[in-house]
Amino acid sequence: MPTRVAYLGPPGTYTEAAALQYAPWSKLIPFPTVAAVASAVDTGMAEEGVVAIENSLEGSVTDTLDLLIHESSLFIRQELVLPIEHCLLARPGTRASDIRVIYSHPQALGQCRKFVERSFPGAQMVAALSTAAAVEQLKSGGDDTAAIGNRRAAELYRMDVLESSIQDTPDTNVTRFVVLAHKDHPPTGNDKTSLCFTFDDDRSGLLYDVMGEFARRNINLAKVESRPTRESLGRYIFLIDLSGHREDPSVKEALQNLEKQVTMLKIFGSYPRYIPAPA
Amino acid sequence: MPTRVAYLGPPGTYTEAAALQYAPWSKLIPFPTVAAVASAVDTGMAEEGVVAIENSLEGSVTDTLDLLIHESSLFIRQELVLPIEHCLLARPGTRASDIRVIYSHPQALGQCRKFVERSFPGAQMVAALSTAAAVEQLKSGGDDTAAIGNRRAAELYRMDVLESSIQDTPDTNVTRFVVLAHKDHPPTGNDKTSLCFTFDDDRSGLLYDVMGEFARRNINLAKVESRPTRESLGRYIFLIDLSGHREDPSVKEALQNLEKQVTMLKIFGSYPRYIPAPA
Repeated sequence: MPTRVAYLGPPGTYTEAAALQYAPWSKLIPFPTVAAVASAVDTGMAEEGVVAIENSLEGSVTDTLDLLIHESSLFIRQELVLPIEHCLLARPGTRASDIRVIYSHPQALGQCRKFVERSFPGAQMVAALSTAAAVEQLKSGGDDTAAIGNRRAAELYRMDVLESSIQDTPDTNVTRFVVLAHKDHPPTGNDKTSLCFTFDDDRSGLLYDVMGEFARRNINLAKVESRPTRESLGRYIFLIDLSGHREDPSVKEALQNLEKQVTMLKIFGSYPRYIPAPA
Repeated sequence: MPTRVAYLGPPGTYTEAAALQYAPWSKLIPFPTVAAVASAVDTGMAEEGVVAIENSLEGSVTDTLDLLIHESSLFIRQELVLPIEHCLLARPGTRASDIRVIYSHPQALGQCRKFVERSFPGAQMVAALSTAAAVEQLKSGGDDTAAIGNRRAAELYRMDVLESSIQDTPDTNVTRFVVLAHKDHPPTGNDKTSLCFTFDDDRSGLLYDVMGEFARRNINLAKVESRPTRESLGRYIFLIDLSGHREDPSVKEALQNLEKQVTMLKIFGSYPRYIPAPA
Protein backbone atom coordinates (compact mmCIF):
# COMPACT_ATOMS: atom_id res chain seq x y z
CA MET A 1 0.00 0.00 0.00
CA PRO A 2 1.22 3.53 -0.76
CA THR A 3 2.10 5.70 2.25
CA ARG A 4 0.82 8.92 0.69
CA VAL A 5 -2.13 9.22 -1.70
CA ALA A 6 -3.06 12.48 -3.47
CA TYR A 7 -6.73 13.10 -4.30
CA LEU A 8 -8.98 15.78 -5.76
CA GLY A 9 -9.98 17.72 -2.66
CA PRO A 10 -10.95 19.50 -0.56
CA PRO A 11 -11.77 16.92 2.17
CA GLY A 12 -15.40 15.88 1.82
CA THR A 13 -15.38 15.22 -1.93
CA TYR A 14 -16.53 11.89 -3.34
CA THR A 15 -12.93 11.39 -4.48
CA GLU A 16 -11.81 11.50 -0.84
CA ALA A 17 -14.38 8.79 -0.08
CA ALA A 18 -12.90 6.67 -2.90
CA ALA A 19 -9.35 7.27 -1.66
CA LEU A 20 -10.39 6.31 1.90
CA GLN A 21 -11.84 3.06 0.63
CA TYR A 22 -8.78 2.31 -1.49
CA ALA A 23 -6.09 3.19 1.03
CA PRO A 24 -7.64 3.56 4.50
CA TRP A 25 -4.26 3.52 6.26
CA SER A 26 -2.42 5.91 3.96
CA LYS A 27 -1.95 9.63 4.46
CA LEU A 28 -4.44 11.29 2.10
CA ILE A 29 -3.39 14.67 0.68
CA PRO A 30 -5.97 16.92 -1.06
CA PHE A 31 -5.13 18.86 -4.25
CA PRO A 32 -7.34 21.43 -5.98
CA THR A 33 -7.32 20.09 -9.56
CA VAL A 34 -6.90 16.81 -11.43
CA ALA A 35 -3.65 18.21 -12.90
CA ALA A 36 -2.33 19.01 -9.41
CA VAL A 37 -3.06 15.44 -8.25
CA ALA A 38 -1.05 14.05 -11.18
CA SER A 39 1.74 16.49 -10.59
CA ALA A 40 1.93 15.49 -6.90
CA VAL A 41 2.55 11.90 -8.01
CA ASP A 42 5.01 13.01 -10.71
CA THR A 43 7.10 14.98 -8.25
CA GLY A 44 7.01 12.36 -5.51
CA MET A 45 4.82 14.25 -3.01
CA ALA A 46 2.59 11.17 -3.14
CA GLU A 47 3.12 7.68 -4.57
CA GLU A 48 -0.37 7.42 -6.04
CA GLY A 49 -3.26 9.73 -6.88
CA VAL A 50 -7.04 9.19 -7.04
CA VAL A 51 -9.25 11.02 -9.54
CA ALA A 52 -12.75 10.45 -10.93
CA ILE A 53 -12.90 9.29 -14.56
CA GLU A 54 -16.56 8.52 -15.28
CA ASN A 55 -20.04 8.84 -13.80
CA SER A 56 -22.94 6.61 -14.80
CA LEU A 57 -25.23 9.61 -15.39
CA GLU A 58 -22.94 12.41 -16.50
CA GLY A 59 -20.39 10.45 -18.51
CA SER A 60 -16.65 10.97 -18.62
CA VAL A 61 -14.73 13.41 -16.49
CA THR A 62 -13.05 15.16 -19.39
CA ASP A 63 -10.36 16.81 -17.22
CA THR A 64 -9.08 13.35 -16.35
CA LEU A 65 -9.25 12.02 -19.92
CA ASP A 66 -7.44 15.09 -21.28
CA LEU A 67 -4.77 14.80 -18.60
CA LEU A 68 -4.13 11.16 -19.52
CA ILE A 69 -4.09 11.98 -23.24
CA HIS A 70 -2.09 15.19 -23.34
CA GLU A 71 -0.28 15.92 -20.12
CA SER A 72 0.62 13.00 -17.94
CA SER A 73 2.86 9.99 -18.34
CA LEU A 74 1.40 8.28 -15.28
CA PHE A 75 -0.39 4.94 -15.54
CA ILE A 76 -3.76 3.70 -14.34
CA ARG A 77 -3.03 1.13 -11.62
CA GLN A 78 -6.49 0.47 -10.23
CA GLU A 79 -10.10 1.34 -10.80
CA LEU A 80 -12.67 1.91 -8.04
CA VAL A 81 -16.44 2.18 -8.37
CA LEU A 82 -18.46 4.02 -5.71
CA PRO A 83 -22.17 4.77 -5.38
CA ILE A 84 -22.92 8.49 -5.17
CA GLU A 85 -25.38 9.65 -2.54
CA HIS A 86 -26.16 13.36 -2.66
CA CYS A 87 -27.56 15.17 0.38
CA LEU A 88 -28.99 18.64 0.83
CA LEU A 89 -26.86 20.37 3.48
CA ALA A 90 -27.30 23.68 5.29
CA ARG A 91 -26.01 25.51 8.36
CA PRO A 92 -27.57 24.25 11.59
CA GLY A 93 -30.86 26.07 12.13
CA THR A 94 -31.61 26.73 8.45
CA ARG A 95 -35.24 25.99 7.57
CA ALA A 96 -36.00 24.32 4.24
CA SER A 97 -38.69 26.94 3.56
CA ASP A 98 -36.08 29.73 3.65
CA ILE A 99 -33.76 28.25 1.02
CA ARG A 100 -33.38 30.40 -2.10
CA VAL A 101 -29.83 29.55 -3.25
CA ILE A 102 -28.30 26.08 -3.73
CA TYR A 103 -24.58 25.65 -4.34
CA SER A 104 -22.88 22.62 -5.85
CA HIS A 105 -20.65 21.27 -8.56
CA PRO A 106 -22.51 21.53 -11.90
CA GLN A 107 -22.62 17.71 -12.20
CA ALA A 108 -24.26 17.37 -8.77
CA LEU A 109 -26.72 20.18 -9.62
CA GLY A 110 -27.55 18.29 -12.82
CA GLN A 111 -28.03 15.02 -10.96
CA CYS A 112 -30.47 16.57 -8.49
CA ARG A 113 -32.27 18.86 -10.93
CA LYS A 114 -35.69 17.19 -10.59
CA PHE A 115 -35.46 17.20 -6.78
CA VAL A 116 -34.61 20.92 -6.76
CA GLU A 117 -37.34 21.81 -9.27
CA ARG A 118 -39.91 19.87 -7.24
CA SER A 119 -38.90 20.87 -3.70
CA PHE A 120 -37.34 24.34 -4.28
CA PRO A 121 -38.97 25.60 -7.49
CA GLY A 122 -37.79 29.21 -7.08
CA ALA A 123 -34.25 28.45 -5.87
CA GLN A 124 -31.23 29.67 -7.81
CA MET A 125 -28.60 27.01 -8.57
CA VAL A 126 -25.05 28.34 -8.26
CA ALA A 127 -22.01 26.47 -9.62
CA ALA A 128 -19.05 25.62 -7.35
CA LEU A 129 -15.74 23.97 -8.21
CA SER A 130 -16.52 20.82 -6.15
CA THR A 131 -19.31 19.54 -3.93
CA ALA A 132 -17.05 20.05 -0.90
CA ALA A 133 -16.23 23.64 -1.96
CA ALA A 134 -19.99 24.26 -2.18
CA VAL A 135 -20.47 23.00 1.37
CA GLU A 136 -17.54 25.12 2.57
CA GLN A 137 -19.19 28.19 0.95
CA LEU A 138 -22.17 27.75 3.30
CA LYS A 139 -20.03 29.07 6.16
CA SER A 140 -20.04 32.53 4.59
CA GLY A 141 -23.46 32.23 2.89
CA GLY A 142 -26.75 33.71 4.10
CA ASP A 143 -29.57 31.94 5.96
CA ASP A 144 -31.21 31.20 2.62
CA THR A 145 -28.35 29.04 1.26
CA ALA A 146 -27.93 25.28 1.00
CA ALA A 147 -25.47 23.00 -0.78
CA ILE A 148 -25.53 19.56 -2.38
CA GLY A 149 -22.76 17.32 -1.06
CA ASN A 150 -22.14 14.08 0.78
CA ARG A 151 -22.54 13.04 4.41
CA ARG A 152 -18.84 13.27 5.14
CA ALA A 153 -18.81 16.92 4.01
CA ALA A 154 -21.69 17.55 6.44
CA GLU A 155 -19.57 16.17 9.29
CA LEU A 156 -16.36 17.92 8.24
CA TYR A 157 -17.97 21.33 7.82
CA ARG A 158 -20.52 20.86 10.67
CA MET A 159 -23.62 21.23 8.52
CA ASP A 160 -27.08 19.71 8.92
CA VAL A 161 -28.34 17.08 6.50
CA LEU A 162 -31.78 18.43 5.53
CA GLU A 163 -32.48 15.59 3.12
CA SER A 164 -30.51 12.57 1.90
CA SER A 165 -30.47 10.54 -1.34
CA ILE A 166 -31.79 13.47 -3.34
CA GLN A 167 -30.32 12.42 -6.70
CA ASP A 168 -32.90 11.95 -9.44
CA THR A 169 -32.07 8.30 -10.16
CA PRO A 170 -30.95 6.97 -6.78
CA ASP A 171 -29.91 3.44 -7.70
CA THR A 172 -27.92 4.07 -10.84
CA ASN A 173 -25.64 6.91 -9.79
CA VAL A 174 -22.13 5.47 -9.46
CA THR A 175 -18.74 6.99 -10.20
CA ARG A 176 -15.66 5.21 -11.44
CA PHE A 177 -12.33 6.47 -10.07
CA VAL A 178 -8.81 5.58 -11.19
CA VAL A 179 -5.60 5.36 -9.18
CA LEU A 180 -2.68 7.00 -11.04
CA ALA A 181 0.86 5.76 -10.35
CA HIS A 182 4.29 5.42 -11.97
CA LYS A 183 3.52 1.83 -12.95
CA ASP A 184 0.37 0.00 -13.94
CA HIS A 185 -0.71 -3.33 -12.37
CA PRO A 186 0.71 -6.82 -13.07
CA PRO A 187 -1.74 -9.30 -14.67
CA THR A 188 -4.35 -10.83 -12.34
CA GLY A 189 -6.38 -12.86 -14.84
CA ASN A 190 -9.36 -10.43 -14.80
CA ASP A 191 -7.99 -7.16 -16.12
CA LYS A 192 -8.82 -4.15 -18.25
CA THR A 193 -6.59 -2.01 -20.42
CA SER A 194 -7.20 1.65 -21.26
CA LEU A 195 -5.57 3.38 -24.20
CA CYS A 196 -5.98 6.15 -26.77
CA PHE A 197 -4.94 6.65 -30.37
CA THR A 198 -5.41 8.97 -33.31
CA PHE A 199 -4.92 9.04 -37.10
CA ASP A 200 -3.34 11.65 -39.35
CA ASP A 201 -5.96 10.91 -41.91
CA ASP A 202 -9.58 11.48 -40.89
CA ARG A 203 -11.11 8.70 -42.95
CA SER A 204 -13.46 6.97 -40.57
CA GLY A 205 -12.72 3.61 -42.19
CA LEU A 206 -9.52 3.63 -40.15
CA LEU A 207 -11.43 3.45 -36.87
CA TYR A 208 -13.41 0.54 -38.28
CA ASP A 209 -10.16 -1.24 -39.25
CA VAL A 210 -8.73 -0.71 -35.78
CA MET A 211 -11.85 -2.07 -34.12
CA GLY A 212 -11.53 -5.08 -36.39
CA GLU A 213 -8.15 -5.90 -34.78
CA PHE A 214 -9.98 -6.40 -31.49
CA ALA A 215 -13.20 -7.92 -32.86
CA ARG A 216 -11.37 -10.68 -34.74
CA ARG A 217 -9.46 -11.65 -31.56
CA ASN A 218 -12.65 -11.64 -29.46
CA ILE A 219 -11.30 -8.84 -27.31
CA ASN A 220 -14.28 -7.08 -25.81
CA LEU A 221 -14.29 -3.27 -25.96
CA ALA A 222 -15.96 -2.06 -22.78
CA LYS A 223 -15.86 1.57 -23.90
CA VAL A 224 -15.26 3.59 -27.05
CA GLU A 225 -15.11 7.33 -26.72
CA SER A 226 -13.71 10.34 -28.55
CA ARG A 227 -12.06 13.55 -27.43
CA PRO A 228 -10.93 16.50 -29.58
CA THR A 229 -7.29 16.49 -30.76
CA ARG A 230 -7.24 20.22 -29.91
CA GLU A 231 -5.79 20.78 -33.38
CA SER A 232 -8.94 21.29 -35.41
CA LEU A 233 -12.66 20.74 -35.09
CA GLY A 234 -13.68 17.35 -36.40
CA ARG A 235 -10.37 15.58 -35.64
CA TYR A 236 -10.58 13.20 -32.69
CA ILE A 237 -8.56 11.07 -30.34
CA PHE A 238 -10.28 7.76 -29.66
CA LEU A 239 -10.22 6.19 -26.22
CA ILE A 240 -10.84 2.50 -25.70
CA ASP A 241 -11.19 0.33 -22.59
CA LEU A 242 -10.72 -3.32 -23.48
CA SER A 243 -10.97 -6.61 -21.59
CA GLY A 244 -7.60 -8.16 -20.87
CA HIS A 245 -4.08 -7.18 -19.84
CA ARG A 246 -1.59 -5.62 -22.26
CA GLU A 247 0.68 -8.61 -21.58
CA ASP A 248 -1.98 -11.16 -22.62
CA PRO A 249 -0.83 -12.65 -25.96
CA SER A 250 -3.95 -11.72 -27.96
CA VAL A 251 -4.09 -8.17 -26.57
CA LYS A 252 -0.35 -7.75 -27.18
CA GLU A 253 -0.74 -8.84 -30.80
CA ALA A 254 -3.73 -6.54 -31.39
CA LEU A 255 -1.81 -3.60 -29.91
CA GLN A 256 1.20 -4.32 -32.13
CA ASN A 257 -1.04 -4.27 -35.21
CA LEU A 258 -2.81 -1.16 -33.95
CA GLU A 259 0.51 0.64 -33.61
CA LYS A 260 1.15 0.22 -37.37
CA GLN A 261 -2.15 1.90 -38.31
CA VAL A 262 -2.25 4.91 -36.01
CA THR A 263 -0.10 8.03 -35.71
CA MET A 264 -0.26 8.12 -31.92
CA LEU A 265 -0.87 5.29 -29.48
CA LYS A 266 -0.72 5.80 -25.74
CA ILE A 267 -1.45 2.97 -23.33
CA PHE A 268 -2.78 4.33 -20.05
CA GLY A 269 -2.26 0.99 -18.34
CA SER A 270 -3.65 -2.41 -17.47
CA TYR A 271 -5.32 -2.93 -14.11
CA PRO A 272 -7.66 -5.37 -12.32
CA ARG A 273 -11.35 -5.07 -13.17
CA TYR A 274 -13.17 -3.65 -10.14
CA ILE A 275 -15.11 -6.24 -8.18
CA PRO A 276 -17.50 -4.82 -5.56
CA ALA A 277 -16.97 -6.09 -2.03
CA PRO A 278 -19.80 -8.41 -0.90
CA ALA A 279 -22.49 -6.41 0.91
CA MET B 1 -36.09 32.79 -41.75
CA PRO B 2 -37.67 32.21 -38.32
CA THR B 3 -39.23 35.25 -36.65
CA ARG B 4 -38.24 34.21 -33.12
CA VAL B 5 -35.08 32.30 -32.19
CA ALA B 6 -34.40 31.02 -28.66
CA TYR B 7 -30.78 30.79 -27.50
CA LEU B 8 -28.75 29.93 -24.39
CA GLY B 9 -28.40 33.32 -22.74
CA PRO B 10 -28.01 35.71 -21.09
CA PRO B 11 -27.16 38.23 -23.85
CA GLY B 12 -23.41 38.31 -24.38
CA THR B 13 -22.87 34.53 -24.59
CA TYR B 14 -21.11 32.97 -27.56
CA THR B 15 -24.41 31.29 -28.37
CA GLU B 16 -25.99 34.73 -28.82
CA ALA B 17 -23.18 35.58 -31.28
CA ALA B 18 -23.98 32.38 -33.21
CA ALA B 19 -27.71 33.17 -33.21
CA LEU B 20 -27.01 36.73 -34.43
CA GLN B 21 -24.96 35.36 -37.31
CA TYR B 22 -27.59 32.76 -38.19
CA ALA B 23 -30.70 34.95 -37.94
CA PRO B 24 -29.65 38.61 -37.80
CA TRP B 25 -33.19 39.88 -38.46
CA SER B 26 -35.03 37.58 -36.09
CA LYS B 27 -36.09 38.37 -32.55
CA LEU B 28 -33.57 36.57 -30.31
CA ILE B 29 -34.90 35.36 -26.96
CA PRO B 30 -32.47 34.24 -24.20
CA PHE B 31 -33.17 31.17 -22.01
CA PRO B 32 -31.12 30.05 -19.01
CA THR B 33 -30.51 26.38 -19.92
CA VAL B 34 -30.25 24.15 -22.98
CA ALA B 35 -33.43 22.38 -21.82
CA ALA B 36 -35.29 25.71 -21.62
CA VAL B 37 -34.21 26.60 -25.18
CA ALA B 38 -35.62 23.29 -26.45
CA SER B 39 -38.78 23.73 -24.47
CA ALA B 40 -39.28 27.25 -25.93
CA VAL B 41 -39.25 25.69 -29.41
CA ASP B 42 -41.48 22.81 -28.30
CA THR B 43 -44.13 25.12 -26.91
CA GLY B 44 -44.00 27.58 -29.82
CA MET B 45 -42.45 30.54 -27.97
CA ALA B 46 -39.80 30.42 -30.71
CA GLU B 47 -39.66 28.61 -34.05
CA GLU B 48 -36.02 27.60 -33.69
CA GLY B 49 -33.37 27.41 -30.95
CA VAL B 50 -29.58 27.73 -30.98
CA VAL B 51 -27.35 25.76 -28.59
CA ALA B 52 -23.66 24.82 -28.57
CA ILE B 53 -22.89 21.16 -29.26
CA GLU B 54 -19.09 20.87 -29.48
CA ASN B 55 -15.90 22.87 -28.89
CA SER B 56 -12.61 22.07 -30.61
CA LEU B 57 -10.69 22.11 -27.31
CA GLU B 58 -13.21 20.97 -24.70
CA GLY B 59 -15.19 18.44 -26.72
CA SER B 60 -18.91 17.86 -26.66
CA VAL B 61 -21.43 19.92 -24.75
CA THR B 62 -22.95 17.00 -22.91
CA ASP B 63 -26.09 18.92 -21.87
CA THR B 64 -26.98 19.27 -25.54
CA LEU B 65 -26.17 15.64 -26.40
CA ASP B 66 -28.19 14.37 -23.43
CA LEU B 67 -31.12 16.59 -24.37
CA LEU B 68 -31.12 15.23 -27.93
CA ILE B 69 -30.81 11.64 -26.68
CA HIS B 70 -33.22 11.59 -23.76
CA GLU B 71 -35.51 14.57 -23.65
CA SER B 72 -36.26 16.30 -26.91
CA SER B 73 -37.99 15.28 -30.10
CA LEU B 74 -36.69 18.35 -31.98
CA PHE B 75 -34.44 17.99 -35.01
CA ILE B 76 -31.10 19.53 -35.93
CA ARG B 77 -31.81 21.84 -38.88
CA GLN B 78 -28.50 23.65 -39.27
CA GLU B 79 -24.99 23.67 -37.88
CA LEU B 80 -22.90 26.82 -37.32
CA VAL B 81 -19.19 27.05 -36.54
CA LEU B 82 -17.80 30.14 -34.80
CA PRO B 83 -14.30 31.06 -33.64
CA ILE B 84 -14.11 31.73 -29.90
CA GLU B 85 -12.16 34.78 -28.76
CA HIS B 86 -11.92 35.11 -24.99
CA CYS B 87 -11.18 38.48 -23.38
CA LEU B 88 -10.32 39.45 -19.82
CA LEU B 89 -12.97 41.93 -18.69
CA ALA B 90 -13.24 44.10 -15.59
CA ARG B 91 -15.14 47.11 -14.30
CA PRO B 92 -13.84 50.40 -15.70
CA GLY B 93 -10.91 51.57 -13.58
CA THR B 94 -9.83 48.11 -12.39
CA ARG B 95 -6.04 47.66 -12.58
CA ALA B 96 -4.66 44.31 -13.74
CA SER B 97 -2.30 44.28 -10.74
CA ASP B 98 -5.26 44.29 -8.33
CA ILE B 99 -7.00 41.23 -9.78
CA ARG B 100 -7.29 38.31 -7.35
CA VAL B 101 -10.51 36.60 -8.51
CA ILE B 102 -11.46 35.58 -12.07
CA TYR B 103 -14.99 34.42 -12.87
CA SER B 104 -16.04 32.43 -15.90
CA HIS B 105 -17.72 29.31 -17.19
CA PRO B 106 -15.51 26.30 -16.33
CA GLN B 107 -14.84 25.65 -20.06
CA ALA B 108 -13.59 29.22 -20.56
CA LEU B 109 -11.48 28.99 -17.40
CA GLY B 110 -10.00 25.77 -18.79
CA GLN B 111 -9.29 27.34 -22.17
CA CYS B 112 -7.40 30.28 -20.60
CA ARG B 113 -5.65 28.33 -17.85
CA LYS B 114 -2.12 28.97 -19.10
CA PHE B 115 -2.81 32.69 -19.56
CA VAL B 116 -4.17 32.95 -16.01
CA GLU B 117 -1.32 30.93 -14.50
CA ARG B 118 1.25 33.12 -16.31
CA SER B 119 -0.33 36.55 -15.85
CA PHE B 120 -2.27 36.10 -12.59
CA PRO B 121 -0.46 33.30 -10.75
CA GLY B 122 -2.18 33.89 -7.39
CA ALA B 123 -5.68 34.52 -8.74
CA GLN B 124 -8.59 32.33 -7.69
CA MET B 125 -10.70 30.94 -10.55
CA VAL B 126 -14.43 30.88 -9.72
CA ALA B 127 -16.98 28.95 -11.79
CA ALA B 128 -20.04 30.71 -13.26
CA LEU B 129 -22.98 29.26 -15.19
CA SER B 130 -22.01 31.07 -18.44
CA THR B 131 -19.36 33.53 -19.61
CA ALA B 132 -22.02 36.24 -19.75
CA ALA B 133 -23.21 35.44 -16.20
CA ALA B 134 -19.57 35.80 -15.08
CA VAL B 135 -19.36 39.26 -16.67
CA GLU B 136 -22.68 40.23 -15.09
CA GLN B 137 -21.32 39.16 -11.68
CA LEU B 138 -18.61 41.82 -11.99
CA LYS B 139 -21.22 44.48 -11.30
CA SER B 140 -21.52 43.29 -7.70
CA GLY B 141 -17.91 42.05 -7.38
CA GLY B 142 -15.03 43.83 -5.65
CA ASP B 143 -12.24 45.89 -7.23
CA ASP B 144 -10.11 42.73 -7.38
CA THR B 145 -12.45 40.81 -9.70
CA ALA B 146 -12.31 40.12 -13.43
CA ALA B 147 -14.19 37.80 -15.79
CA ILE B 148 -13.45 35.90 -18.97
CA GLY B 149 -16.01 36.60 -21.71
CA ASN B 150 -16.40 38.02 -25.18
CA ARG B 151 -16.29 41.56 -26.57
CA ARG B 152 -20.05 41.80 -26.89
CA ALA B 153 -20.47 41.03 -23.18
CA ALA B 154 -18.03 43.89 -22.46
CA GLU B 155 -20.27 46.26 -24.42
CA LEU B 156 -23.54 44.95 -22.99
CA TYR B 157 -22.39 45.09 -19.36
CA ARG B 158 -20.16 48.19 -19.84
CA MET B 159 -16.91 46.53 -18.83
CA ASP B 160 -13.34 47.28 -19.93
CA VAL B 161 -11.44 44.79 -22.08
CA LEU B 162 -8.12 44.45 -20.21
CA GLU B 163 -6.73 41.90 -22.64
CA SER B 164 -8.11 40.13 -25.72
CA SER B 165 -7.44 36.73 -27.36
CA ILE B 166 -6.32 35.22 -24.08
CA GLN B 167 -7.21 31.61 -24.92
CA ASP B 168 -4.24 29.22 -24.74
CA THR B 169 -4.46 28.06 -28.36
CA PRO B 170 -5.79 31.10 -30.21
CA ASP B 171 -6.21 29.72 -33.71
CA THR B 172 -7.86 26.42 -32.97
CA ASN B 173 -10.65 27.40 -30.59
CA VAL B 174 -13.93 27.11 -32.46
CA THR B 175 -17.38 26.04 -31.30
CA ARG B 176 -20.01 24.20 -33.30
CA PHE B 177 -23.62 25.21 -32.63
CA VAL B 178 -26.81 23.53 -33.82
CA VAL B 179 -30.17 25.04 -34.67
CA LEU B 180 -33.04 22.97 -33.23
CA ALA B 181 -36.42 23.02 -34.97
CA HIS B 182 -39.54 20.90 -35.55
CA LYS B 183 -38.16 19.69 -38.89
CA ASP B 184 -34.68 18.98 -40.16
CA HIS B 185 -33.36 20.34 -43.49
CA PRO B 186 -34.16 19.11 -47.02
CA PRO B 187 -31.21 17.63 -48.95
CA THR B 188 -28.71 20.13 -50.41
CA GLY B 189 -26.13 17.74 -51.85
CA ASN B 190 -23.57 18.45 -49.11
CA ASP B 191 -25.18 17.29 -45.91
CA LYS B 192 -24.54 15.62 -42.59
CA THR B 193 -26.76 13.38 -40.50
CA SER B 194 -26.56 12.99 -36.72
CA LEU B 195 -28.03 10.03 -34.86
CA CYS B 196 -27.69 7.84 -31.79
CA PHE B 197 -28.33 4.19 -31.02
CA THR B 198 -27.83 1.60 -28.31
CA PHE B 199 -27.84 -2.18 -27.87
CA ASP B 200 -29.47 -4.33 -25.22
CA ASP B 201 -26.47 -6.57 -25.33
CA ASP B 202 -23.13 -5.03 -24.42
CA ARG B 203 -20.99 -7.13 -26.76
CA SER B 204 -18.73 -4.58 -28.42
CA GLY B 205 -18.76 -6.63 -31.61
CA LEU B 206 -22.18 -5.07 -32.24
CA LEU B 207 -20.68 -1.59 -32.57
CA TYR B 208 -18.16 -3.00 -35.01
CA ASP B 209 -20.96 -4.59 -37.07
CA VAL B 210 -22.88 -1.32 -37.14
CA MET B 211 -19.84 0.62 -38.28
CA GLY B 212 -19.44 -1.96 -41.03
CA GLU B 213 -22.84 -0.94 -42.45
CA PHE B 214 -21.41 2.51 -43.09
CA ALA B 215 -17.85 1.46 -44.04
CA ARG B 216 -19.04 -0.92 -46.77
CA ARG B 217 -21.16 1.84 -48.34
CA ASN B 218 -18.29 4.36 -48.16
CA ILE B 219 -20.29 6.56 -45.81
CA ASN B 220 -17.79 8.62 -43.88
CA LEU B 221 -18.30 8.87 -40.12
CA ALA B 222 -17.23 12.36 -39.08
CA LYS B 223 -17.70 11.61 -35.40
CA VAL B 224 -18.18 8.63 -33.11
CA GLU B 225 -18.90 9.30 -29.50
CA SER B 226 -20.47 7.61 -26.48
CA ARG B 227 -22.68 8.79 -23.65
CA PRO B 228 -23.94 6.84 -20.64
CA THR B 229 -27.35 5.16 -20.97
CA ARG B 230 -28.04 6.36 -17.38
CA GLU B 231 -29.11 2.81 -16.61
CA SER B 232 -25.84 1.30 -15.48
CA LEU B 233 -22.14 2.08 -15.58
CA GLY B 234 -20.50 0.58 -18.63
CA ARG B 235 -23.60 0.70 -20.89
CA TYR B 236 -23.42 3.37 -23.55
CA ILE B 237 -25.41 5.19 -26.19
CA PHE B 238 -23.33 5.77 -29.32
CA LEU B 239 -23.61 8.99 -31.29
CA ILE B 240 -22.55 9.23 -34.90
CA ASP B 241 -22.28 12.12 -37.35
CA LEU B 242 -22.11 10.82 -40.90
CA SER B 243 -21.67 12.37 -44.33
CA GLY B 244 -24.84 12.46 -46.40
CA HIS B 245 -28.55 13.07 -45.98
CA ARG B 246 -30.92 10.51 -44.45
CA GLU B 247 -32.81 10.54 -47.78
CA ASP B 248 -29.71 9.64 -49.84
CA PRO B 249 -30.24 6.03 -51.04
CA SER B 250 -27.02 4.60 -49.50
CA VAL B 251 -27.58 6.34 -46.16
CA LYS B 252 -31.22 5.26 -46.15
CA GLU B 253 -30.22 1.64 -46.73
CA ALA B 254 -27.52 1.71 -44.04
CA LEU B 255 -30.02 3.18 -41.55
CA GLN B 256 -32.59 0.50 -42.38
CA ASN B 257 -30.01 -2.22 -41.69
CA LEU B 258 -28.87 -0.41 -38.54
CA GLU B 259 -32.42 -0.38 -37.23
CA LYS B 260 -32.51 -4.20 -37.29
CA GLN B 261 -29.40 -4.49 -35.11
CA VAL B 262 -30.00 -1.93 -32.40
CA THR B 263 -32.57 -1.61 -29.61
CA MET B 264 -32.93 2.16 -29.96
CA LEU B 265 -32.24 4.36 -32.96
CA LYS B 266 -32.94 8.09 -32.91
CA ILE B 267 -32.14 10.28 -35.91
CA PHE B 268 -31.44 13.83 -34.77
CA GLY B 269 -31.71 15.09 -38.33
CA SER B 270 -29.96 15.83 -41.62
CA TYR B 271 -28.68 19.33 -42.31
CA PRO B 272 -26.26 21.16 -44.62
CA ARG B 273 -22.57 20.86 -43.76
CA TYR B 274 -21.37 24.24 -42.48
CA ILE B 275 -19.33 26.18 -45.02
CA PRO B 276 -17.51 29.21 -43.61
CA ALA B 277 -18.30 32.52 -45.33
CA PRO B 278 -15.33 33.78 -47.40
CA ALA B 279 -13.16 36.14 -45.29
